Amino acid sequence: MPNTLYLPELREMLAEQNTADLREFCTALHPARTAEFMEGLTAEEAWAVLRYADMPLRAEIFGFFDEDKQVEIIETIDKAEMADLIGHMPPDDRVDLLDEVEPAVVEDLMPLVPDEERRDILRLQAYPEDTAGGEMTTEFARLSEEMTTEQAIEHIRRQAEELETVYYLYVLDDKDHLRGLISFRQLLMAKPGTKIADLMERDIVTVNVLDDREDVAAKVDRYNILAIPVVDDEHRLVGIITHDDVIDVVREEATEDAYRMAAVEPLDEGYMESPFWQLIWNRGIWLTILLVGAVLTAVVLQPHQETFKEIPWLVLFIPLVISSGGNTGSQSATLIITAITIGNISFGDWWRVVRRELLMGMVLGGALGMVGFLCAFILLRAMPAIPDIPDMTAMEALHAAATIPITLMLVVICGTLFGSTLPLLFHRLGLDPALMSNPFVAGIIDVVGILIYMQVLYSMQLV
Amino acid sequence: MPNTLYLPELREMLAEQNTADLREFCTALHPARTAEFMEGLTAEEAWAVLRYADMPLRAEIFGFFDEDKQVEIIETIDKAEMADLIGHMPPDDRVDLLDEVEPAVVEDLMPLVPDEERRDILRLQAYPEDTAGGEMTTEFARLSEEMTTEQAIEHIRRQAEELETVYYLYVLDDKDHLRGLISFRQLLMAKPGTKIADLMERDIVTVNVLDDREDVAAKVDRYNILAIPVVDDEHRLVGIITHDDVIDVVREEATEDAYRMAAVEPLDEGYMESPFWQLIWNRGIWLTILLVGAVLTAVVLQPHQETFKEIPWLVLFIPLVISSGGNTGSQSATLIITAITIGNISFGDWWRVVRRELLMGMVLGGALGMVGFLCAFILLRAMPAIPDIPDMTAMEALHAAATIPITLMLVVICGTLFGSTLPLLFHRLGLDPALMSNPFVAGIIDVVGILIYMQVLYSMQLV
Repeated sequence: MPNTLYLPELREMLAEQNTADLREFCTALHPARTAEFMEGLTAEEAWAVLRYADMPLRAEIFGFFDEDKQVEIIETIDKAEMADLIGHMPPDDRVDLLDEVEPAVVEDLMPLVPDEERRDILRLQAYPEDTAGGEMTTEFARLSEEMTTEQAIEHIRRQAEELETVYYLYVLDDKDHLRGLISFRQLLMAKPGTKIADLMERDIVTVNVLDDREDVAAKVDRYNILAIPVVDDEHRLVGIITHDDVIDVVREEATEDAYRMAAVEPLDEGYMESPFWQLIWNRGIWLTILLVGAVLTAVVLQPHQETFKEIPWLVLFIPLVISSGGNTGSQSATLIITAITIGNISFGDWWRVVRRELLMGMVLGGALGMVGFLCAFILLRAMPAIPDIPDMTAMEALHAAATIPITLMLVVICGTLFGSTLPLLFHRLGLDPALMSNPFVAGIIDVVGILIYMQVLYSMQLV
Repeated sequence: MPNTLYLPELREMLAEQNTADLREFCTALHPARTAEFMEGLTAEEAWAVLRYADMPLRAEIFGFFDEDKQVEIIETIDKAEMADLIGHMPPDDRVDLLDEVEPAVVEDLMPLVPDEERRDILRLQAYPEDTAGGEMTTEFARLSEEMTTEQAIEHIRRQAEELETVYYLYVLDDKDHLRGLISFRQLLMAKPGTKIADLMERDIVTVNVLDDREDVAAKVDRYNILAIPVVDDEHRLVGIITHDDVIDVVREEATEDAYRMAAVEPLDEGYMESPFWQLIWNRGIWLTILLVGAVLTAVVLQPHQETFKEIPWLVLFIPLVISSGGNTGSQSATLIITAITIGNISFGDWWRVVRRELLMGMVLGGALGMVGFLCAFILLRAMPAIPDIPDMTAMEALHAAATIPITLMLVVICGTLFGSTLPLLFHRLGLDPALMSNPFVAGIIDVVGILIYMQVLYSMQLV
């Protein structure tokens, strides 16, 4: 929701070209808050306000606008001014942003961006979006081994404005190979005159530029670090990924998994921002696959049509039986997919997982069976009379209701087994276990559940 | 999976009491890696190795052990040594850890922990686990407004070892009220001799000590900050929450939501670590609720038993119809729950959301209807003859199959509407929208789907 508190004041200041107040507005608050207060402005108005901020601050406030607003400003405001702004944005953010801007606009802009920045943009654009290269920034603090602590502090002080973080400093040789790492805190605590080479850590956690960004996030999380260095195959430092980007990755990957588990093909943008037909496609493709799969339920029911005529009450419990199996299966799938994602279990654990789920299926199936039996018995006894359908005696109802616990027990066990083994199998095959979506697992259990239910009915010689 | 590469060497070093090599092992690697190499050791062995590390490093390596290993060590090793270690652990981590240790052991330990640290532990333990207070650490860098930059740098240098982060410095008055914030980078770049009061930012993003940790994570994410100050109702600074804890919160909350959406009551620990009966309870409670709810499907089917006898083919499509509605509902619920969690939509947007979902339901329902019609027609025509059930003519099959697209259309629309409005409603009522789990939404649609299906059948005068 846009914060509209200050909009009238802001517009008045703009109309009066009130330099003092507009400068004050730009500098007084945290840039993110300044951006929030400007949400209700048009692209032109927002830019008119930003002109009163110095460039580094201007780029920072701009970075806190919604992506849509950023794109709108870039596409409508003077190209030369925009190129200047882009030159001052963090390297990783501007690459992501330019991806969203009309290609024709980007083509006009790029020649106006300073040479060095433009080369940097082109280099970063070459990396796939979901790799370390696609997330990293190229503005990191470099030191050499020969520097003393004082020289290093002075060196960093001079370029502090430019850097994404000054708190981790990377020690490179003259070929850009990563030789060591030193934190600003270590620098601060060291004896004056110490050489960087004697101070730096040499065992450094790194990621390769083509590593999956999910693995990058897991490493940063595991090692509790502020930033992780990204190296190429020759161990040259090409960028760093900072903690704030890691939070975004964790969030995005969690959302992606949630979508997959609900059989929605992941979206590039949020729900409200995604185009209508994109959503239709990302949902429809899976719904259609699931619907065609569900035809199997009709196929396995088909040979039993005569039985529906003979014992019509059997139909009442079909949805109940299959949904119990499906729910159990979804639970198992979610538990296992989450555990795989966090890295707690892998295919090697399949026997421990299956044994656990089998036992759990037996206990849960037993419990649900008892509840189901009671419900079925009450329902069969209490239901109002229907012409042509003879009332059941208590004995008959008891006998009929007894099919439910046996069926539920078996169906729930199948639910836990399928729900746990299928994600493990997908993971083993190198596929995303979350593809083994809950509706998919539930769909399989629906078919199996019907087969089990009919078999139990016949075995109990009710037919 | 434990890294067992160095275990034999480590055990040999221990047997030989090889001080030089054991010290080297403790210091050469990143503490997280050192901890990984020690995973295969028993609690006694691990502690024997750690004795060769100086206390700050010892506490750090210990912090990277699995929680189970940490608890085991605390419960088996000499209490005085443990109390010393606990005194050196980060305040937030040790409180979380002590929660997991046997109360009797904690009781023995606490009197041995230095006074100041013990008071700190007791103070932090008082905050609920899912609040800012439950996540924060109390070791932050304090400055006063009168200091100059040099004094401030010297002040921080002296206590750098103790602090969780030296990169954000908090300016307090003599009553501990938070007056301002300054980053180490700003300190570094400032003109020598500048007063902190002239340099510090006064518009600071803070959280209250009782704020939900999910809101805390959202704020840190939004403002891209390294650490967020936690204040009490009097705006006194009581702690800070650092970026690494925020990553953990984001991960844990995402897992919690995934569990809720699959109707598993969230677990305190991972799947493999959770006790069997805990899992049974957390799954069983929801399965039972859903099963009892599913009895409604039997109730709404009950009056139609005679119809099953007259047109037994109607039964074939019950699972297909209700699963399509349920799947659409799960998709909508997941999309909306995710958007609410990220903060993209709120109850105020309900009309935009409902309109969007209604349209989407019509398009998706139309598409699925066509596929469903084709499948139903083929099935009705192609199914093998069954004694007592007369074969359908092409016209009859066409007429029968025509119920499917109409039903699917209506059921899918209900799916999108229920799936989108129920989470919004829950959110509005102050409940976790993820409680509106996918199985729960699907269960409601099952009942509605059956009602719609039977109504469509009767309306088409097939009966």
